[in-house]
Amino acid sequence: VNETFKRALIGIVGEANFSDDILDRVCYAYDASDHAHRPEAALWPVSREQITQILAFSSEHRIPVTPRGAGTSLTGAAVPVHGGVILDLCLMNQILDIRIADRRVVLQPGVIYADLERALAPHGFFFPPDPASSSVCTIGGNVATNAGGIRGAKYGVTRDYVLGLEVVLADGRVMRTGSYCIKSSSGYDLTRLLVGSEGTLGVITEILLRIQPRPTAVQTGLALFDSLQDAGQGVIAIMHSGVVPSVLEILDERSIQVVRGENGVSLPEVKAILLVETDGFTETEASFQMEKVIEVLKKHRAVEIRVARSPQEAEALWRVRRSIGSAAARLRPSNVSEDVTVPISRITDLLAGIAAIVGRHDLPFVVFGHAGDGNLHPRIMYDPADPDQTRRVQHAVGEIFRLTCDLGGTLTGEHGIGLAKAPYMGYEHDPVEMEMMRAIKRLFDPHHILNRGKMALDG
Amino acid sequence: VNETFKRALIGIVGEANFSDDILDRVCYAYDASDHAHRPEAALWPVSREQITQILAFSSEHRIPVTPRGAGTSLTGAAVPVHGGVILDLCLMNQILDIRIADRRVVLQPGVIYADLERALAPHGFFFPPDPASSSVCTIGGNVATNAGGIRGAKYGVTRDYVLGLEVVLADGRVMRTGSYCIKSSSGYDLTRLLVGSEGTLGVITEILLRIQPRPTAVQTGLALFDSLQDAGQGVIAIMHSGVVPSVLEILDERSIQVVRGENGVSLPEVKAILLVETDGFTETEASFQMEKVIEVLKKHRAVEIRVARSPQEAEALWRVRRSIGSAAARLRPSNVSEDVTVPISRITDLLAGIAAIVGRHDLPFVVFGHAGDGNLHPRIMYDPADPDQTRRVQHAVGEIFRLTCDLGGTLTGEHGIGLAKAPYMGYEHDPVEMEMMRAIKRLFDPHHILNRGKMALDG
Repeated sequence: VNETFKRALIGIVGEANFSDDILDRVCYAYDASDHAHRPEAALWPVSREQITQILAFSSEHRIPVTPRGAGTSLTGAAVPVHGGVILDLCLMNQILDIRIADRRVVLQPGVIYADLERALAPHGFFFPPDPASSSVCTIGGNVATNAGGIRGAKYGVTRDYVLGLEVVLADGRVMRTGSYCIKSSSGYDLTRLLVGSEGTLGVITEILLRIQPRPTAVQTGLALFDSLQDAGQGVIAIMHSGVVPSVLEILDERSIQVVRGENGVSLPEVKAILLVETDGFTETEASFQMEKVIEVLKKHRAVEIRVARSPQEAEALWRVRRSIGSAAARLRPSNVSEDVTVPISRITDLLAGIAAIVGRHDLPFVVFGHAGDGNLHPRIMYDPADPDQTRRVQHAVGEIFRLTCDLGGTLTGEHGIGLAKAPYMGYEHDPVEMEMMRAIKRLFDPHHILNRGKMALDG
Repeated sequence: VNETFKRALIGIVGEANFSDDILDRVCYAYDASDHAHRPEAALWPVSREQITQILAFSSEHRIPVTPRGAGTSLTGAAVPVHGGVILDLCLMNQILDIRIADRRVVLQPGVIYADLERALAPHGFFFPPDPASSSVCTIGGNVATNAGGIRGAKYGVTRDYVLGLEVVLADGRVMRTGSYCIKSSSGYDLTRLLVGSEGTLGVITEILLRIQPRPTAVQTGLALFDSLQDAGQGVIAIMHSGVVPSVLEILDERSIQVVRGENGVSLPEVKAILLVETDGFTETEASFQMEKVIEVLKKHRAVEIRVARSPQEAEALWRVRRSIGSAAARLRPSNVSEDVTVPISRITDLLAGIAAIVGRHDLPFVVFGHAGDGNLHPRIMYDPADPDQTRRVQHAVGEIFRLTCDLGGTLTGEHGIGLAKAPYMGYEHDPVEMEMMRAIKRLFDPHHILNRGKMALDG
């Protein structure tokens, strides 16, 4: 970004919303992944019009532009690997319209998930995807990565709730997609093509979301198993039982060891744990489903089943699951956290396979995740200052992706591809699909200025 | 289709699965719309390999190809308006795999909706979209048009359940999209781009659907209103009440007049009716929601509320809704049936507006539909032998589309665009969106052989 470019960009966003200060450039080199690359400048646009001008200018001068929400990406999706400018959308954080009768909200991309939740709560409504980073992540980032969360088994992911978008295309044109209706079959679904495209096809400036009433009754249970296979068979049996738990989490034996020492967690030595939540509008409904689940898990040799009788007891059960991440992270200076996903019946195959792979590379790890939708989070701890550990982590991750795809799975259930998984796209997607994805990228962004270097779709 | 082409196509599908007989050509000129155009031949391929060869050959020789399911399209989507060949997929009708634990089925496009329903029923599972044509329509057609149905308010539409597709592209290449997992954020969502593309981007040869447990408890209720406005306010109030009915149908006064004479239907003279269904896994859950709905509708001046106390009584309430179509159709030799959709709060505005428009054109009509997702079905009866009536229908329909879009609505909630709504695409979609849709069409089908003339996306 030379002096001419700098003046032009300042001309668009104003002095206060432009920075090429070294401190900002260092900060914006990172997201929540272990990737990093410094941008040449950061911009904080406040309107669609400014973004239009920035992109038209950047297209003309081939300046790479990386849109950014809260930077919670675990895949390097927000890292400006080709430099250029960061487009931080945090100032575009207005909830523009809440229409309960139409089951719809309209908002800007910089709205924090938790702020939307707070705005909907008085109406008894919610936007169900509930990413672990919900207290800080932005809805724009959720949409760009098709974020999931802990209630995916019953409620699906972000894509299931996006009705329409306003985006600025690479050349500065503004496009509106979708509809204010909760249902439409009119034309190609450009909305969902953009959801999960990680900022590579356009910059989102407005989002229409479908919302729904929040269930008012919840039951929480925890089941302990002496064998991983029993837990896996239990998950399969729950799927056959005719009910859909809103939460169905699995913890492997290493996760259990790691949280056993945590404050307030009391657990025997077992090999696997399932955390289950059922919900509904009545206690009867939530209990009926929980009883079905318990019945099934007893048949599959659960050695102990705990059902919460109060919100406090539920919170204690949840603490088991919630403590894993931070407890595991303390084992080494850094870690990678993946989100490989397989068909539900292959969960135990994936768990066992991950244990064998990471064991062979001799690194501490835990595996936990959303058994109800087949989405596991292997977290491998390592010291990035040790080149040998770093190399071993990379090999282990590559092998986990290979295994996942061999099991009919996907590289990512909810984090997206970004930089981290770009080299593995060919494991999952056939060459024709890759070719069509690349052709769409070229169609939307012929000069490859938008979040360049991500998803293996450039060039 | 000259003699050389004919021999080549017979070489691919065999004598028995090719026809240029005049009877077949006449039959395949039609679908369930009032559009018609004769193809030059019909083909009944039995495999992906045959379709690959047909499309490669057709691309090379620029032969228009129109894929077809059961031909239940109300928009002319299956009418080969540029001639060429019909690709009838009815022989590719195998359910290939049902995996309850993975909540997934794999099937060929020619499977009839009702056959899939029968195959899933013993497991207690279902594929929720439930089009009115479910006894004959194909899943391939459902996917191609993003078909909806009567339970859309709670369960959504076809697009919400398609996990992946195998398609043959215009040049004969085979592409697999999506994943066997019920959750993925890997790459661009080509699956949902193809859903609703009405056979203009490729020919679907395999479909992966997400399925779910069928609720085991259902409550059915009927509420009568002396004023349309009260019914509309009742719908809005239900949306605010914190529950989501699985069915919320509205009938206007003309629909009520038309069904009042029907066998087994007893109704007083009222101005609007709401049919409500709630569901769950327990009777308590279904009843709790129905009670909430009743409470709300009483407040909004329902003059009578009937709740079914048995499946027989529920069937009697459903008969009111189900009789409209056939009863109305008897009023004139032909009719057009639209599926305009608006934000839920605008339902009564659309109802009143349609009445004013069609009244001005002096034609018999009824309006009913899915108030729970904003999707109305105005059905206008006319005699196609009378040019003046035909002209008046066309004007009325155009004005209804204009009104719908002015109310923030969409041309089609569940039927698709096809031929019938192609001239109105500009009412709903902005020029940039239209341009990107056309560019995607060119990318997938550069010679415009696939279902040419549909959706206003050629050229």
